[in-house]
Amino acid sequence: MANVDLGLRKWTVNSQREINYDIILTEEVLNPYNEMLLAGGRKNGSRRFVVVDRFIYNMYRDELETYFEKNEIHSKIVPFDSGEKNKSLENYIQVFKELDKFPIDRRGEPIIAIGGGVVTDVIGFIASSYRRGIPHIKVPTTLMGYVDASVGIKVGVNFNGNKNRMGSFEPPKAVILDKGFLKSLPHRHILNGVGEIIKLAVIKDINLFEYLEHNGPECIEAKFQNSAGDSILDASISGMLEELEPNLYEDNLERSVDFGHTFSLALEMHNVDNMLHGEAVAIDVAFSTVLANVHSLLSLEEQNRILILIKKLQLPHCHKSLIPNLLWECLIERTHHRDGLQRVPLPDSIGNCVFVNDITYDEILQTCTIMERLFKV
Amino acid sequence: MANVDLGLRKWTVNSQREINYDIILTEEVLNPYNEMLLAGGRKNGSRRFVVVDRFIYNMYRDELETYFEKNEIHSKIVPFDSGEKNKSLENYIQVFKELDKFPIDRRGEPIIAIGGGVVTDVIGFIASSYRRGIPHIKVPTTLMGYVDASVGIKVGVNFNGNKNRMGSFEPPKAVILDKGFLKSLPHRHILNGVGEIIKLAVIKDINLFEYLEHNGPECIEAKFQNSAGDSILDASISGMLEELEPNLYEDNLERSVDFGHTFSLALEMHNVDNMLHGEAVAIDVAFSTVLANVHSLLSLEEQNRILILIKKLQLPHCHKSLIPNLLWECLIERTHHRDGLQRVPLPDSIGNCVFVNDITYDEILQTCTIMERLFKV
Repeated sequence: MANVDLGLRKWTVNSQREINYDIILTEEVLNPYNEMLLAGGRKNGSRRFVVVDRFIYNMYRDELETYFEKNEIHSKIVPFDSGEKNKSLENYIQVFKELDKFPIDRRGEPIIAIGGGVVTDVIGFIASSYRRGIPHIKVPTTLMGYVDASVGIKVGVNFNGNKNRMGSFEPPKAVILDKGFLKSLPHRHILNGVGEIIKLAVIKDINLFEYLEHNGPECIEAKFQNSAGDSILDASISGMLEELEPNLYEDNLERSVDFGHTFSLALEMHNVDNMLHGEAVAIDVAFSTVLANVHSLLSLEEQNRILILIKKLQLPHCHKSLIPNLLWECLIERTHHRDGLQRVPLPDSIGNCVFVNDITYDEILQTCTIMERLFKV
Repeated sequence: MANVDLGLRKWTVNSQREINYDIILTEEVLNPYNEMLLAGGRKNGSRRFVVVDRFIYNMYRDELETYFEKNEIHSKIVPFDSGEKNKSLENYIQVFKELDKFPIDRRGEPIIAIGGGVVTDVIGFIASSYRRGIPHIKVPTTLMGYVDASVGIKVGVNFNGNKNRMGSFEPPKAVILDKGFLKSLPHRHILNGVGEIIKLAVIKDINLFEYLEHNGPECIEAKFQNSAGDSILDASISGMLEELEPNLYEDNLERSVDFGHTFSLALEMHNVDNMLHGEAVAIDVAFSTVLANVHSLLSLEEQNRILILIKKLQLPHCHKSLIPNLLWECLIERTHHRDGLQRVPLPDSIGNCVFVNDITYDEILQTCTIMERLFKV
């Protein structure tokens, strides 16, 4: 069809937006003399709306109240139930209404989210949409939040049976990391965060991978309170930021950090009540590792080395929901999400990945069969 | 309290986001040979999700369907009821679900909003939050949309009795302007857009103001289809963009285009079923003009010249809801929105404004009394 140019006059809007935020390691974040929590906002006499994971709220309620009292901040502290099923539009609306009852100034009184990825994702989405955007501070209290959810700018809620279907990109004012919170995490939630750490090791950091082989079990046991734990956390956050910073808004849809995040979505949404995000990621890492071998990318030796580490760290690696049709549907959905191409990151060696657009149904089928045989599901 | 520095390690994330979009004047936007509507996306064989003001849908349904058929685009066309009360979270959710049933690729298949400010604001908010952001095209069909709502990046819905309480800043892929849609607008909706035009004239464009004095009534009569109409539309859009472009994300909260948008919010939300946005703006322009004189900024002569033009253009200028307490509450709310300072733009002469932070309750009271006397409410 002929292209008739009917443009009569044109204005072009050109602008740049600066993104700038710090991720700060601290200790004793709830010590009233530590002012990190009040970063980037007004101090004495101002207000703070604070949303806290209920588990943390129950443990630290007095410290939290004292913190704001001693700093002469008028605070409203709202507990929030964590868990993937609470990452919902309903909870977004409910907290949004609470915030609307506690009028804060638009710029100088950041809202504060203290909790795991669910809390920081939901509250980050509120920050992005309340009055078209107000500042927020994230304080991760889970390992998942610490090394993954809190350091980037992706926020949102699950919707209509789809993970993160509703959300946005919203840079925080600051991210405050206090490793002390990890002490009280149940073992299962420590492993949950390790799912993201091993993902990063496999696709981009052979040194971290080897370090995990040697020190992983001990760090998990110590809940990362040891110095080897510091090294792993540091490498994980640094590695994550290296990938995120040049592509904060995902202008490039080939993202190596999407490794472990293609098939995991099917697992998570079909097991929303009893599977953690990092568990689904760990299973996807195992599956994608075998798939990389099936796709003739990764040697059998390296495949096995990855699977052995996953087992050594006691991560989940297989699941009855690994059904070819379900995984194939999930890949189609991810293809829409990645704008029409699969763009699946797969390792071609430990510490490096490539992007693949030609995974076939047969390969998925074959991978499932191998997984069954390997892990005798 | 002593400030103890407990920062142990810090990562800084630094990035820039480019904003870039065109506002394009065209004719016959629904002529299948005009490809403007498909700007910035894939063509043959691709998909488009299109949301259309129901009034326009009823008039142009066949043209719309033919347009996409002839261009070999698989489209889903959804009518949307306009009116301020439909700018709601409920409608946002409903259309979001419709979109989720019509899978589009994340980048190459922009959603299209055809309608007034309500439609483009709600659909723009969906675009900003579906999968954390997908591209969208705006086609304003009202004068309000044409000169104001569609050319900027503010999107959102009313919530909890507050205008635009939930929303975001979302640059469109393109804005397509076709003056032909204005032909079918009722007189009241033409005046609705003139409310924003006169606002702009008073605070920044004496030439536009004088042009309105001479040609305004005739242009309104001709629904801007005459050449004087072209001049007014061009000056309005250019002026609006001059103000918006350097401050797209409102980093600077002193915005001259907020003139007429301080007290109007009280009027609108208290009369949500029967007052149009531009009517509330026109009344606020009249009120703020008198207030500028009460505040010793604007001469009585210039005040009267503005009020005479408002009357000459037959814009609404007074309302029974102009009650001092209500206006004062609204100013307090706006002060939160403007981060703790009033920052009310008021004209100090026709074509120029200053920002005022010290409006008193007594001045509001005095202005109400003068308004009553002037307009005998």
